[in-house]
Amino acid sequence: KFWLLAALSFSLSHMLKYIVMENENIGRYGFCVEPYTEDATGHVSLSFLGNQILRCAGMHATAHGFGYEQLIEQNLVWVLSRLVLTFEDRPKTLEHYTISTWVTKVYRQFTERLFRLEAESGEPMGYGFSIWAAIDYKTRQPIDLEKLPDGGFTSVLLPKEDFPISGAGRVRVKSEEPVCQYRAGFSDLDINGHVNSMRYLEMILNLFSADYHRTHQIRRIELQFCNESYCGDTLLLFREDKNENVCDVEIRKGASVIVRAEIETAAL
Amino acid sequence: KFWLLAALSFSLSHMLKYIVMENENIGRYGFCVEPYTEDATGHVSLSFLGNQILRCAGMHATAHGFGYEQLIEQNLVWVLSRLVLTFEDRPKTLEHYTISTWVTKVYRQFTERLFRLEAESGEPMGYGFSIWAAIDYKTRQPIDLEKLPDGGFTSVLLPKEDFPISGAGRVRVKSEEPVCQYRAGFSDLDINGHVNSMRYLEMILNLFSADYHRTHQIRRIELQFCNESYCGDTLLLFREDKNENVCDVEIRKGASVIVRAEIETAAL
Repeated sequence: KFWLLAALSFSLSHMLKYIVMENENIGRYGFCVEPYTEDATGHVSLSFLGNQILRCAGMHATAHGFGYEQLIEQNLVWVLSRLVLTFEDRPKTLEHYTISTWVTKVYRQFTERLFRLEAESGEPMGYGFSIWAAIDYKTRQPIDLEKLPDGGFTSVLLPKEDFPISGAGRVRVKSEEPVCQYRAGFSDLDINGHVNSMRYLEMILNLFSADYHRTHQIRRIELQFCNESYCGDTLLLFREDKNENVCDVEIRKGASVIVRAEIETAAL
Repeated sequence: KFWLLAALSFSLSHMLKYIVMENENIGRYGFCVEPYTEDATGHVSLSFLGNQILRCAGMHATAHGFGYEQLIEQNLVWVLSRLVLTFEDRPKTLEHYTISTWVTKVYRQFTERLFRLEAESGEPMGYGFSIWAAIDYKTRQPIDLEKLPDGGFTSVLLPKEDFPISGAGRVRVKSEEPVCQYRAGFSDLDINGHVNSMRYLEMILNLFSADYHRTHQIRRIELQFCNESYCGDTLLLFREDKNENVCDVEIRKGASVIVRAEIETAAL
């Protein structure tokens, strides 16, 4: 009888998980790693994957009535404030994978969105945590998301249960000695004319040699987007190694901090 | 009777074109411009589109038995030597488009491959011309493609009739004064550990301001790939304006030329 119960409870919990994962408030998007989108380790590059994760956020928001197209009618745009990504592994050339995303929280000017990266087998490969604000396109001021008409998108909120990712932390780089400088060019810009958020990640990954990347895995990336930068801006990168595997980075333009970041690696 | 003949001949030539374009030796691949792949002008970025064009070459080659997977078994890899792209226009966010590709020539160590970029309406938006060599992976020496067993892939060759693109030309930059320098980083590398060919194009596009890009259209790009570069290499860019709309560029590493390029723009 015990075994029967155990089996039943296993299949129920499995079914429950399936139901939760297939919840209509979760967006699930399938992809395949196309040649020319890998990095030198043979995995889909972090910047390409990062842009896909942001694209999934956009598709999910649009499907529920609060995407770019719907917000722009009210002169609002989404702004990414924090992005944390953790990885066990990343898919390789021609491997299929799924990105799932859902919203867990709305609090004043911010909303919290989670991500899950899954191999074709269903095995989790990574997780994502993000914080977004909606700002008025003209005044650049954030709006109170709790005061949106009809409760905004609170009806799509899902509970954040046992989600295996820590939120955004504290990143402070005290160094006043830049380790490198980079002049932002046209190819770094997104459709809005700002330096694309994943280009900052590329600049940070470039602080490590190709040999380091071949012998270490990126386990966690935290990106805090503080200010925009533009074509022609000179960006200075400041680096502080917290320990053997954790490195904090600040990207500054003059006195203004553009991005704060933390990268955690593990030896392969 | 004249009108009947004219109509008949029009419909025949139309049908003929249709048949040629649907020839089994032509690969046709459909795409859609995904958000986060555009540049600041709102069109699919030239580097992303360039990588897709190269990906189509790969899919077409694989479908006909001479792709990466098949060549690597004989220790051979394809190397892109020349790429010329011309544009009337480029698709914008969420617009659908097609890339067609076919092979027109095999001569000693080289093969010539053409491309056509088409809007969803069937309207041509651009053309591509490329030259490739197959090199031995170990010796890095090119092989004679005319001497491949079973005639190699000569059976897929199509005639190059009225193709509206001029081949690769002469690019020489005499300047010894670099206009900028760039340190290649990990994020610039492709799966083989070389700087990705489209990253060179991005460096070249970065020679022009965002304002220039907003007020001018890139009409023609010619890229001659002379040598590889790697993570940590310092690349120097040399520029020579041939006239108001044509600019030649050399990317050098020390005394060695990595890429020669010519960019032609037109005021919007």
